[in-house]
Amino acid sequence: MKIGILGGGQLGRMLIQEALKYDDQFYTLDPASDAPCHNISYFTQGNFNDYETVLNFGKDKEVVTIEIEHVNAEALAELEKQGVKIVPNSNIIKTIQQKILQKEFYKTHNIPSPEFQVVWNRDEEITMPLPFVQKMNTGGYDGKGVQVIKNEIDLQNLWQEASVIESLVDIDKELSVIVARNENGETKTFPVTEMVADPKLNLLDFNICPVFLNEDIQKQIDSITEKFLEVVNSPGLFAIELFLDQEGKIWVNETAPRLHNSGHQSQEGNANSQFEQMYRVVKNLPLADTDSLTFSGMLNLVGAEGFEGKVIYEGMDDVLKMPKTYVHLYGKTETKPGRKMGHINVLADSKEELMEKLVKVKEMVRVIAE
Amino acid sequence: MKIGILGGGQLGRMLIQEALKYDDQFYTLDPASDAPCHNISYFTQGNFNDYETVLNFGKDKEVVTIEIEHVNAEALAELEKQGVKIVPNSNIIKTIQQKILQKEFYKTHNIPSPEFQVVWNRDEEITMPLPFVQKMNTGGYDGKGVQVIKNEIDLQNLWQEASVIESLVDIDKELSVIVARNENGETKTFPVTEMVADPKLNLLDFNICPVFLNEDIQKQIDSITEKFLEVVNSPGLFAIELFLDQEGKIWVNETAPRLHNSGHQSQEGNANSQFEQMYRVVKNLPLADTDSLTFSGMLNLVGAEGFEGKVIYEGMDDVLKMPKTYVHLYGKTETKPGRKMGHINVLADSKEELMEKLVKVKEMVRVIAE
Repeated sequence: MKIGILGGGQLGRMLIQEALKYDDQFYTLDPASDAPCHNISYFTQGNFNDYETVLNFGKDKEVVTIEIEHVNAEALAELEKQGVKIVPNSNIIKTIQQKILQKEFYKTHNIPSPEFQVVWNRDEEITMPLPFVQKMNTGGYDGKGVQVIKNEIDLQNLWQEASVIESLVDIDKELSVIVARNENGETKTFPVTEMVADPKLNLLDFNICPVFLNEDIQKQIDSITEKFLEVVNSPGLFAIELFLDQEGKIWVNETAPRLHNSGHQSQEGNANSQFEQMYRVVKNLPLADTDSLTFSGMLNLVGAEGFEGKVIYEGMDDVLKMPKTYVHLYGKTETKPGRKMGHINVLADSKEELMEKLVKVKEMVRVIAE
Repeated sequence: MKIGILGGGQLGRMLIQEALKYDDQFYTLDPASDAPCHNISYFTQGNFNDYETVLNFGKDKEVVTIEIEHVNAEALAELEKQGVKIVPNSNIIKTIQQKILQKEFYKTHNIPSPEFQVVWNRDEEITMPLPFVQKMNTGGYDGKGVQVIKNEIDLQNLWQEASVIESLVDIDKELSVIVARNENGETKTFPVTEMVADPKLNLLDFNICPVFLNEDIQKQIDSITEKFLEVVNSPGLFAIELFLDQEGKIWVNETAPRLHNSGHQSQEGNANSQFEQMYRVVKNLPLADTDSLTFSGMLNLVGAEGFEGKVIYEGMDDVLKMPKTYVHLYGKTETKPGRKMGHINVLADSKEELMEKLVKVKEMVRVIAE
């Protein structure tokens, strides 16, 4: 089958890697000529935000999917009209792309998400009490387009752009759950993972699985995923990022309509990975079992501060000597501070052993430049 | 690193698939324009048996390796002289390519292998008592070039070509062990697997792991692998095919100087796969741990008799519904009787469950044509 992917980054690369187990042809579209997918797929260099480019790219494909949500959704809607299958549907991409629509989607469907106010421009009166979070309506990614406004002074820095202002959750844990639905309506949910974020880069630091939650919390999550998969009304794989607050209540932070960094440990930690599941969604195949096989965790390999240029992974030989430790690089030749260059998955027999191994690996390796 | 592979078949494809976790450029050489590697590597269409073709292909690579042993070893020797690293060394490829040299290698190094007689042509006197096995000196592959001569009548069918005539082992079990050695001299051995062959096609049918062997048998195998890895004196990954006879003695049947069908279950069954290990050998990295994680088995997907043309995998949806069952197709569009089109790996908690699942899967799926 001819499968098109908007975006040629690491998520697309790992999807294609997994799907090499089957017999399909992958086509990718990305503005960077050296995108991680460029040499493992039929590659088109171009802008996935441009209407004509996306239309031309998609029109001879059987299915078009995305590995980044900031794409031209109008062109995808037109392709749908022309009979190309879009996964997930252009409607849900459009909804999730825009924080305002995304928040209203949760509200409409009674999916618990922090209280919010829509602010179209800076002159509008803010009724949300301080402190709060401002999220730009469009363009947010990897922590960009999100800021916390703590006090009157911070208010000076309020962005001009259309945005959502959200009440601040008193976070106990940041959780994530990857869910999938195929065209036949079959659904499957991965075990919940817990994230430990790097406060500076706002990138995931460790992501561990499974997480032991009490029955009430697990029930809240199940009810959210069930409701989401019911109302989303589209085939797709989605990452639902959750907050568990200090009172034991679960809130949806945000949803990505695609493969997600918080699902990477599934590559070796689960019976099947999020990439295998995504492939099955795209092809409308029976969904894969998602059981955790053991304790697993992931750590991002991010370009170190002060280094820019041809990448060197310092300490990698020591990592490769560690049992049940799996290096995944993204085929990017140039590093810069904060750039996601790869990740390392670790398996262990207990949570204690897992955390020890993750910390050890993190101290071992550094992403620097020549 | 620029890594060249002679051969662009499924073994190369799965090696590249695994190595997509790292940042290398793979180049493949294969006579078939639609070889399984053609769209996931920098592909050259050409004959890997041709001296000039191999020389041209290899001269600008840092490392050249093989995924089939029937290649022009003279060209590899020349490339070695020119400073290209060849894995495994051209010498050992040359030795293993020719059954006569291979048998003499075992004899020289006291590696137990069935008694044999070298026959250069048909007029030579056969001193080996009947029944025996005849193996052509060169060109044998997937059961081709091997025949059993049981009686005086069969003797009429003796091949003309230079060959080895071997005494017939009274086989209890067919075993296999994948071993690896890197340039630093580090060595690692995979757990032994047991093969159940399809007597008609002489292809592996099921291959299961781990195998429980008594201490004496395991010691014999350990001593063979240790000796082999010591005397081979080359980086490489090798599959040593073994016979266990009715008296509990282990014999080396033959060795492949490359990735092997009998190691496929390692993809999901072991802490690391033979493909990961091969990658590490090629790059002279620390070797990977090879532990079995659980019971695992593999079944080949072979083109059914009576079907030729565009392949259809009948029953595949049912296979995909089975938990801990992994389909690996090779990207071949055309099937024919006996052609290896893919394999399926299965994980289980016990040997009984494993065998049940393998038989069930085998009955579920059929490789037919449109």
